[in-house]
Amino acid sequence: MDIVLACDHAAFEEKEMLKKHLLSLRHNLIDVGTNSNERCDYPDFAKAGAVEVLKLNCLGIFLCGSGIGISMAANRFAGIRAALCRSSKEAELSKQHNNANVLCLGARINSNDELVAIANTWLSSSFEGGRHLDRVTKFDGWGTKL
Amino acid sequence: MDIVLACDHAAFEEKEMLKKHLLSLRHNLIDVGTNSNERCDYPDFAKAGAVEVLKLNCLGIFLCGSGIGISMAANRFAGIRAALCRSSKEAELSKQHNNANVLCLGARINSNDELVAIANTWLSSSFEGGRHLDRVTKFDGWGTKL
Repeated sequence: MDIVLACDHAAFEEKEMLKKHLLSLRHNLIDVGTNSNERCDYPDFAKAGAVEVLKLNCLGIFLCGSGIGISMAANRFAGIRAALCRSSKEAELSKQHNNANVLCLGARINSNDELVAIANTWLSSSFEGGRHLDRVTKFDGWGTKL
Repeated sequence: MDIVLACDHAAFEEKEMLKKHLLSLRHNLIDVGTNSNERCDYPDFAKAGAVEVLKLNCLGIFLCGSGIGISMAANRFAGIRAALCRSSKEAELSKQHNNANVLCLGARINSNDELVAIANTWLSSSFEGGRHLDRVTKFDGWGTKL
């Protein structure tokens, strides 16, 4: 599976940790950065990641300290359905009901083990369609077109 | 304080519960619905709530079953900074770092007591500005203009 990774400085270590995990599962990763602990701005990486997710029509995992900022910025873009998840239950719901194509995580909120568990559940969950598709279709075209 | 309330059917009871709580604190509430348990679509209420938050330049509390769908849809709009929060800590961070003007809650994720605690913390927290303002400014104009 193609998976786009994006983060800011506050989540750099956790992005690298997830990268190793996802590579061990033989996913194809597109890492748009950041690639150090040096301070940067999460909107830049939300946008760079969104561009790749839409171009490749694939999934993304975006991280910042709380996950909140990067989820706000990513959801500005038409076609990006970014779900901020703190548990595997939420990750499953975000795929089943919202067809989330971006998982947002908070490096300072969940432990590494929790981040891996949430990502695993999210990657293995599926959209239910039906009335949920009608709802997603209502808002998915809203936002800035990339 | 002026506070806009919005929800879908899955969070109708919790919106009514929060409404009573917020009225007891003498806030001025603008309730855009929904106003029953009848099935409806969260994007309609995310948009109706966003319109009021921007018009009145005030805060909003938006709910759906998980909080995920309504946070995706609300963040499509320029000027709306919608933070999905599961704890008081996240609610505090969302104001301090992201200047969130909409709090998104999941009626099926948190208990009523937790929802009240998260809302209370969020309403009493403040934006830190500084470098956080630079980051918010970078993305806040992105999205559909209402």
